[in-house]
Amino acid sequence: MTPEDLVEIEAIKRVKYRYTRCLDQKLWDEIGECFTADAVAAYSGGAYSFEGRDAIVDFLRRSMGAETFHSSHRMHQPEIDLISPTTARGIWALEDTVIETQWQITIRGAAFYNDEYVKDNGQWRISRTGYRRSFEELQPRAEVTGLRLTASWWATDGRSELPAG
Amino acid sequence: MTPEDLVEIEAIKRVKYRYTRCLDQKLWDEIGECFTADAVAAYSGGAYSFEGRDAIVDFLRRSMGAETFHSSHRMHQPEIDLISPTTARGIWALEDTVIETQWQITIRGAAFYNDEYVKDNGQWRISRTGYRRSFEELQPRAEVTGLRLTASWWATDGRSELPAG
Amino acid sequence: MTPEDLVEIEAIKRVKYRYTRCLDQKLWDEIGECFTADAVAAYSGGAYSFEGRDAIVDFLRRSMGAETFHSSHRMHQPEIDLISPTTARGIWALEDTVIETQWQITIRGAAFYNDEYVKDNGQWRISRTGYRRSFEELQPRAEVTGLRLTASWWATDGRSELPAG
Repeated sequence: MTPEDLVEIEAIKRVKYRYTRCLDQKLWDEIGECFTADAVAAYSGGAYSFEGRDAIVDFLRRSMGAETFHSSHRMHQPEIDLISPTTARGIWALEDTVIETQWQITIRGAAFYNDEYVKDNGQWRISRTGYRRSFEELQPRAEVTGLRLTASWWATDGRSELPAG
Repeated sequence: MTPEDLVEIEAIKRVKYRYTRCLDQKLWDEIGECFTADAVAAYSGGAYSFEGRDAIVDFLRRSMGAETFHSSHRMHQPEIDLISPTTARGIWALEDTVIETQWQITIRGAAFYNDEYVKDNGQWRISRTGYRRSFEELQPRAEVTGLRLTASWWATDGRSELPAG
Repeated sequence: MTPEDLVEIEAIKRVKYRYTRCLDQKLWDEIGECFTADAVAAYSGGAYSFEGRDAIVDFLRRSMGAETFHSSHRMHQPEIDLISPTTARGIWALEDTVIETQWQITIRGAAFYNDEYVKDNGQWRISRTGYRRSFEELQPRAEVTGLRLTASWWATDGRSELPAG
């Protein structure tokens, strides 16, 4: 590995971070720029699989578009290997939480991603992505005594209703 | 981006990591060194806003100082852009958990930070910081059947009371 | 810090990421390669202490080997300092979740690691590791109304049983 390789690896991390931020902020137009046109995705051990950028973005928008769907996807522990000047592979550790206030459920999970990246016109993009779950669990919220949402990107403009300490 | 830029970016990440560690370890003197004297903060979508390093540190110490306040702030997915040799901008994804054993509550949240950094005398510092919540929730602990704190930085000297597997 | 230092630091991060992935994927042979032969570990404020790679790996396998033990360890906020061309120190912030489906418990925790690393034959390895808990809590799962595991690396081949949005 050389310092110049590190610059490429940082650029690849940035694409993944941008993708994840767009997901949780519901920036569906911008998220498309993170994928190659012919990208393929196999989320959740292949349970949700799609071919082509448009099909992937359409799935993300459909499944996570509602403003009652509050998500936090966090990417950890990047193991990125450059294969050639324009191709790379990466492993990532995911943790994600979803709070759906309409259906009153919480979903929590952990997974490992295996990605492939392609550099074209000076820009790295995701050409293949997919994760396999370590675990995932679902919990109904209505039964949890006293549980209360105190901030929401959409419902409270990102401000907490809690008083400062 | 050049290898030399990456060195600056790593130095900026280090300031953020030090700030976050000082927060969870309650190192209130050291945490001040992470900010410029004229730093401004707008936490939680502006709900908690402060001007000047002293006002920020005073707020942090007041709201998180108690040894019954157990926090885990974790910063993810840095998107750092150098603006000039001595100024930079950064986006971070936060997840945080607070367990308050006196009030018997748990608070869990996710947010995105927008920061600005300034380099002075060879040292990067935070000159502007603030986050907007994706979500935040509060749960009373006393109602959770069988829930038990098994380690605490302060109450058990960081050791678990659980037997090894 | 120089660009060449960053290459060493990235290599050290990679060892930690590989260690953590091997832990959660139960790759007990591969995990040994992350340690020096004479490595020492003091997990959980010293509650679980071991001398030598074999003793450490034996402990990890014994305590986390069961396929009913679903874990997510995530390492954050690396503060890595090179001490010499072949030695380094590092601080990491951990968050971990364990879901044990046989004992029907969830354990959640946060901690700070203090590590030491040695480079030998061109390969960085962990020579000393240990963490101190910010907090740790245990919750019985059977009492949680409606809580349901919907994916498992082992029981469902990493696929979710939830329908796509």
